[in-house]
Amino acid sequence: MKTLIRDTAIVPMTEKDLVIDKGYIIIEDQFIKEVGQGEYPEGEYDKVIDGRDYVALPGFINTHTHAAMTLLRGYANDLSLMDWLEKKIFPMEAKLGEEEIYWGTKLAILEMIKSGTTCFTDMYFKMDQVAQAVKESGIRAVLSRGMIGVGPENEEAIEDSRALVKKWHHAEDGRIQFMLGPHAPYTCPPDYLKRVSALAAELNVGIHIHLAETVGEYEDMQKQYGKTPIALMEETGVLQNQVLAAHCVHMSDEDIQLLKKYNVGVAHNPESNMKLASGVAPVVTMLEAGIPVALGTDGVSSNNDLDMFQEMRTAALLQKVQTMDPTVLPAYQALEMATVNGAKALRQEQQIGRIKEGMRADIILVGLQEPHMIPTYDLVANLVYSGHASDVQTVFVDGKMLMENRKFFMDEEEIITRVKEIAERLNRGEA
Amino acid sequence: MKTLIRDTAIVPMTEKDLVIDKGYIIIEDQFIKEVGQGEYPEGEYDKVIDGRDYVALPGFINTHTHAAMTLLRGYANDLSLMDWLEKKIFPMEAKLGEEEIYWGTKLAILEMIKSGTTCFTDMYFKMDQVAQAVKESGIRAVLSRGMIGVGPENEEAIEDSRALVKKWHHAEDGRIQFMLGPHAPYTCPPDYLKRVSALAAELNVGIHIHLAETVGEYEDMQKQYGKTPIALMEETGVLQNQVLAAHCVHMSDEDIQLLKKYNVGVAHNPESNMKLASGVAPVVTMLEAGIPVALGTDGVSSNNDLDMFQEMRTAALLQKVQTMDPTVLPAYQALEMATVNGAKALRQEQQIGRIKEGMRADIILVGLQEPHMIPTYDLVANLVYSGHASDVQTVFVDGKMLMENRKFFMDEEEIITRVKEIAERLNRGEA
Repeated sequence: MKTLIRDTAIVPMTEKDLVIDKGYIIIEDQFIKEVGQGEYPEGEYDKVIDGRDYVALPGFINTHTHAAMTLLRGYANDLSLMDWLEKKIFPMEAKLGEEEIYWGTKLAILEMIKSGTTCFTDMYFKMDQVAQAVKESGIRAVLSRGMIGVGPENEEAIEDSRALVKKWHHAEDGRIQFMLGPHAPYTCPPDYLKRVSALAAELNVGIHIHLAETVGEYEDMQKQYGKTPIALMEETGVLQNQVLAAHCVHMSDEDIQLLKKYNVGVAHNPESNMKLASGVAPVVTMLEAGIPVALGTDGVSSNNDLDMFQEMRTAALLQKVQTMDPTVLPAYQALEMATVNGAKALRQEQQIGRIKEGMRADIILVGLQEPHMIPTYDLVANLVYSGHASDVQTVFVDGKMLMENRKFFMDEEEIITRVKEIAERLNRGEA
Repeated sequence: MKTLIRDTAIVPMTEKDLVIDKGYIIIEDQFIKEVGQGEYPEGEYDKVIDGRDYVALPGFINTHTHAAMTLLRGYANDLSLMDWLEKKIFPMEAKLGEEEIYWGTKLAILEMIKSGTTCFTDMYFKMDQVAQAVKESGIRAVLSRGMIGVGPENEEAIEDSRALVKKWHHAEDGRIQFMLGPHAPYTCPPDYLKRVSALAAELNVGIHIHLAETVGEYEDMQKQYGKTPIALMEETGVLQNQVLAAHCVHMSDEDIQLLKKYNVGVAHNPESNMKLASGVAPVVTMLEAGIPVALGTDGVSSNNDLDMFQEMRTAALLQKVQTMDPTVLPAYQALEMATVNGAKALRQEQQIGRIKEGMRADIILVGLQEPHMIPTYDLVANLVYSGHASDVQTVFVDGKMLMENRKFFMDEEEIITRVKEIAERLNRGEA
């Protein structure tokens, strides 16, 4: 299969502020075969897309979510963290079985593709169902089975994770990958984290963990173990693996040095951190230290959507007002966070995150014709500060077109119908 | 003309958290004739809309913008305030003539209607052109001619404002209103503000002013006049008029008491305040004091769009993280800010801002079928935290349908073509 996208603007994310005008992209099977400007090579193409009204970007990489929480969208809002979790989220999650997780993940994938996300990083449960939904849908994902180190299920979490890695890691020609998912320092005691670290080394997979999200966690870990959450991760051997740390809001200067030393990928979730009043992560400081800070939406129940355009924009605006400096986190850097930094945080920067010869063809075409995108003095600024999810027209993952002119190739109606039925059941209090 | 919207969800904004399920709305000429639930009255209707996939809301009221700045969208970003203003914005604005302002305003109106805004408050120049664009488009607006009190044009600003009020105030059956627009305390010395205050009283119009936007302004006014910007407004007689104050970021406790005492309407512009790093306005404190705090986008050049969905969401999230309390500014209150509080801030709460019998029919129908709006446990939370501008399907202003199923009744293509031509000319440095 050979596709030509011609006469299109391209923001390849290979060089600061680079916009290729009247460019072309040739996709062959799963790969980007050629990227150029002007005259495109004559040849036989199975499909030719006229790109004049679009800009081509690497697909967004959502580095932290809990996909099936679409089932809980809008279910609990404007509550204190503990009321939200204990009174609303946990009881509802206890009702989610395999069918619910499967359809909730499908809805998330539908929403992500329609808003330009081509790869997501998930931590949840019933991950066999999640992997199945990913396999069928064609999206790229890095999955992890949430592990709680206290309570009776801690052994099961380890065995389950081992089996999932064996079954799914590198499946679908590498489109599906797995990591281990110890939930957080406050749910996984040090001894458990040591076991998880050893298992990650044994299986040669990364670790995805919530880290330093709230002031409470930051203070409690110091009281309990005499160390900050991040220092505790060094002590337990977690950081010595390939780590994706979600949040990283509350940290000492030494913590930031540790993130840098171990090349930890950070998933910054600005909207979730704002909605739950967790705080403002020191993103500018981390980026200046050379840490690959990427973006995530977190689960829909604390966001309440999976829209990476909003996340880019909010990340940039929030850092500006937090530092009281409008020059920090400029538009191109926000776009890097949503694309190439995501690839770095997932250790897939040789495969995805840029539009470059030899890389996997994860590409989105964003329309430029809506009033909010006009005029165009600065295409990158328009994308970051004015772009909407609904501007995404066409999406490729691994060279395969998953949406064309907003027509989605999965059965959108069935997904929506099934999720509505499940939500009605959940809301009536049924399992 | 009599229109029935049947079988629709309605969030009328008449009572906290009220959602009318399977409701109906009857629109007769410019007015809302009847709002009810269940069986709708039999009768002759010129138009019947099946509302099953929609929720009906009062149209959004954008209480502070500079509409024609769409012409400068994305032109200058990520700069310090002074570099942004003096090196980029002012030189560009100097090139804007009547034709440019007319088409820039048209583009803004197009974008606003497509994102659910039915009334906007503008402060700019060449306001005769702006009023003409408003007249033709059918949107509702409260306009003011920006007045600079220093320099040779201060007299002209007064005469011009007087003439504009005479020509346009209450025009189009009240759809167009005017206020006086003294720009800000740092551009209008006290003596000039006294003259403007007297003129407002004479003409019986309100005053729209930028107030307490930056730390610099807050400190400078105290150095120069020994008073905070807001206290200075009392001294010069401004507050004794009907005032719409944009920003109100930097204030003392006494300032907030003054806003309350004089029932000042506040236009909160969270995204502009973030992008320019002006600071975070004490919105929760002002709302608790009973001040009508509404929302505005500010001009596109510091936002970079006119999307009130984003403004609601950002307002709520920003207050939560700023106060470190996730319970503040809940979804319904954010929706109030975008609708009924806007009407209060403009002293039009008897005409617009709610869906209620006898009020002007400024109504939007928002689609509920996109993946990001599913499921629906809490319709208001979905609107505020997941709603997108592109969900707006149908828009009525003053009983007239300006958009139906996203088909806009103005010549969208002509507006976009003309603005692109103007932007190319401006970018080449031509007047």
